[in-house]
Amino acid sequence: MTVTAKPFDLIAFDADDTLWHSEDSFNASELRFVDLVAPYAAEGIDVKAALTAVERKNLSLLGYGVKAFGLSAVEAAISITAGRVPVEVIGQIVDMIHDQLSAPVRLLDHVPEVLAAVGGSYPLALITKGDLIHQTHKVETSGLAHHFQRVEIVLEKDPGTYDRVFRELGVDPARVCMVGNSVRSDVLPVIALGGTAVHVPYPLLWELEHVDDDSYPPDHFVELSSIAALPDWLGV
Amino acid sequence: MTVTAKPFDLIAFDADDTLWHSEDSFNASELRFVDLVAPYAAEGIDVKAALTAVERKNLSLLGYGVKAFGLSAVEAAISITAGRVPVEVIGQIVDMIHDQLSAPVRLLDHVPEVLAAVGGSYPLALITKGDLIHQTHKVETSGLAHHFQRVEIVLEKDPGTYDRVFRELGVDPARVCMVGNSVRSDVLPVIALGGTAVHVPYPLLWELEHVDDDSYPPDHFVELSSIAALPDWLGV
Repeated sequence: MTVTAKPFDLIAFDADDTLWHSEDSFNASELRFVDLVAPYAAEGIDVKAALTAVERKNLSLLGYGVKAFGLSAVEAAISITAGRVPVEVIGQIVDMIHDQLSAPVRLLDHVPEVLAAVGGSYPLALITKGDLIHQTHKVETSGLAHHFQRVEIVLEKDPGTYDRVFRELGVDPARVCMVGNSVRSDVLPVIALGGTAVHVPYPLLWELEHVDDDSYPPDHFVELSSIAALPDWLGV
Repeated sequence: MTVTAKPFDLIAFDADDTLWHSEDSFNASELRFVDLVAPYAAEGIDVKAALTAVERKNLSLLGYGVKAFGLSAVEAAISITAGRVPVEVIGQIVDMIHDQLSAPVRLLDHVPEVLAAVGGSYPLALITKGDLIHQTHKVETSGLAHHFQRVEIVLEKDPGTYDRVFRELGVDPARVCMVGNSVRSDVLPVIALGGTAVHVPYPLLWELEHVDDDSYPPDHFVELSSIAALPDWLGV
């Protein structure tokens, strides 16, 4: 009889665009913002690019998530139009933010059965950044919370934060496998700690998540085209 | 020689209005909001009460903190004035929110020496609710972070949340002493778990934190007029 030791002590999952759709709703809100604001902007202004510039300027003050996006969108609507935007449009932007915050979670395909399969062999954690109340509501209404030993909503997904979370869980970072859609937030920081990353790209990626780095240690990195392939890759 | 066993295994502190000023800045923003918006409101409208009503309506969607306050303030400015508020005023509200988020932390009197004294005898934790990025920035810039074994920024300070935090720290809730200014958030939920609460009132209390319950088990509750009295009460 051969006993094969398990390669990991914890499988950690990102949430937005890994377990459920997220970026597509930001994308839809950005398009709606352009529709609402462009009629009052000076000719030749790239309204979408100007909105992203305001988001980038505010990132260290407002952080991630829908509320931060909403405050940046209100600010951008005024600055892009030099104050010509009617206050009714500001009201429509606030309504749009409320709709985005209260929209039901839409799971990605295969997620419940993948978590059940992987969770049968490994302890699971969920590590996500964003807005505390919105992320908590999504976890609670997703029907997925029972799969996870620990849910961590963090400010920034950098090596220091991952190290703190793994230490609190009593897990050696070298024995963690992190599954997520963002090279910047899910792959690079975990590899930096000696862990392993499974990259499952989502069709859309927020501009502020883009990185050019694509030099991964091949024995600590794999890219899967769908989360459905994860149980096979883990051998569970 | 008599050895007296320590009564607690952990002293936990609230942050806003317990370690540093917070409600006074919300108060100042509310007064500024009234100044900005009242000229466009119909006669007889209580602008401050209408703002609080919008905050209350949005609490389950937006949660606590300055970003939530900001989005509610923008919405309230439009609804209270039936859209008569000029967009310039909306811009001033957004600026006010940015100022509030970037304002330096102002510690309450005696806090550093109290934490040093209590921390010399007990492990300390900080448990606060609010906005993830704003609370993190305040902790990091307060000069107090090194006193705490654990900093937890939570969505809601209810018995379930406290129980989870204490369990993760490996501490029996009955052996915790929680210090804070809010009866609703710092005192009642900890007493409900069998712990002890030290209430240190702050001159201002947010309307949505008010409770009428004031029936405390006398051996699990004390009210101190200043945090400066805490070391003596703990006998450290």
